[in-house]
Amino acid sequence: MLYVISGPSGCGKSTLIRRLLNEMKTTVRFSVSHTTRPRRSMELHGKDYYFVSEEEFQSMIRSNAFLEWAVVHGLHYGTSREEVESKLGQGDLLLDLDVQGARQVRAKCPQAVFVFVVPSHPKELRRRLELRGSNTPESIRERLAAARNEVEAYEEFDYIVVNDFLEKAAQEIRSIIVCGKCRRESRADEMSSILNSYRLGADS
Amino acid sequence: MLYVISGPSGCGKSTLIRRLLNEMKTTVRFSVSHTTRPRRSMELHGKDYYFVSEEEFQSMIRSNAFLEWAVVHGLHYGTSREEVESKLGQGDLLLDLDVQGARQVRAKCPQAVFVFVVPSHPKELRRRLELRGSNTPESIRERLAAARNEVEAYEEFDYIVVNDFLEKAAQEIRSIIVCGKCRRESRADEMSSILNSYRLGADS
Repeated sequence: MLYVISGPSGCGKSTLIRRLLNEMKTTVRFSVSHTTRPRRSMELHGKDYYFVSEEEFQSMIRSNAFLEWAVVHGLHYGTSREEVESKLGQGDLLLDLDVQGARQVRAKCPQAVFVFVVPSHPKELRRRLELRGSNTPESIRERLAAARNEVEAYEEFDYIVVNDFLEKAAQEIRSIIVCGKCRRESRADEMSSILNSYRLGADS
Repeated sequence: MLYVISGPSGCGKSTLIRRLLNEMKTTVRFSVSHTTRPRRSMELHGKDYYFVSEEEFQSMIRSNAFLEWAVVHGLHYGTSREEVESKLGQGDLLLDLDVQGARQVRAKCPQAVFVFVVPSHPKELRRRLELRGSNTPESIRERLAAARNEVEAYEEFDYIVVNDFLEKAAQEIRSIIVCGKCRRESRADEMSSILNSYRLGADS
């Protein structure tokens, strides 16, 4: 199952995903995106992003290597098909995407689960963007203006996670994933072996 | 939102529900069924069941007081309309029903969420039925034979919870409920006020 976690810049989706990956190590994987944006101090190449040059990114676009890509606040972000195809066989896969990227994945994989993360007030968004340190006042203004439009896109998503308290928001995303595992369709194989044991009876 | 928790006799659904009610006190309620079955030692009238006579039950059937009712292993069980209507306004409502009862509720409330609870092997079912003490060897045989048919009904359910480990099964049902709260449609009111705050901006 593919889970697309999306929301405005500063909504906290990357922090939430890092936490979930830590808690659900054995069952959940992360799709590492390619980006042309500079690496932040805490980030690792190949873990948080594949940090590539503008030229490399353009060449990947030309060779149709991306499942989705978008220009966000002047920088390129993309999910390579190879990344998704190789990791999807290993369990649930989380994609951290902006609203444009989520839209592209929805067009190609409508069976994926789409989660929109949003703090209940834009003040909280501004606070987080300021905390990052790497944003200029103009870039913060720009992101807040974009957020206003992005929030209107919430109707395109299956689930809404209001991220005012990290622990509660993390529990909600975790519940969406655990609930996905309980869907009848997800348990088809397990149920066919359970049916068998009931047909054989309690003495088998 | 209405959650119907169902499964064969001895699957552990009542234990799971008791645990959830304890953990999610403020948001989840329990629909107390009427029954003609004798009270077990740990059970309380009005909390676990409304224990009524055969005559009282028949009179409720005649006055169309039940949303669903069924004869299970020779005893009557039913959910009164009044019980559901009065509690549904107060939050999520859990119904503990056998497979026949679940079917009747599905016909009347198709928007409810249907969860099937089942241990992966009938041996575990037998172990739990024996533990109860109140079951005769014949009644255990009868329940195990019924379980074989009931398990075949799993395809009518939205979610499957394999109850081999109480803690894991409880976490799964909890996740199904939390996930239900995150559905876009469940958050319509909250999102309309969030949209408003983003339209006003971070300085509002």
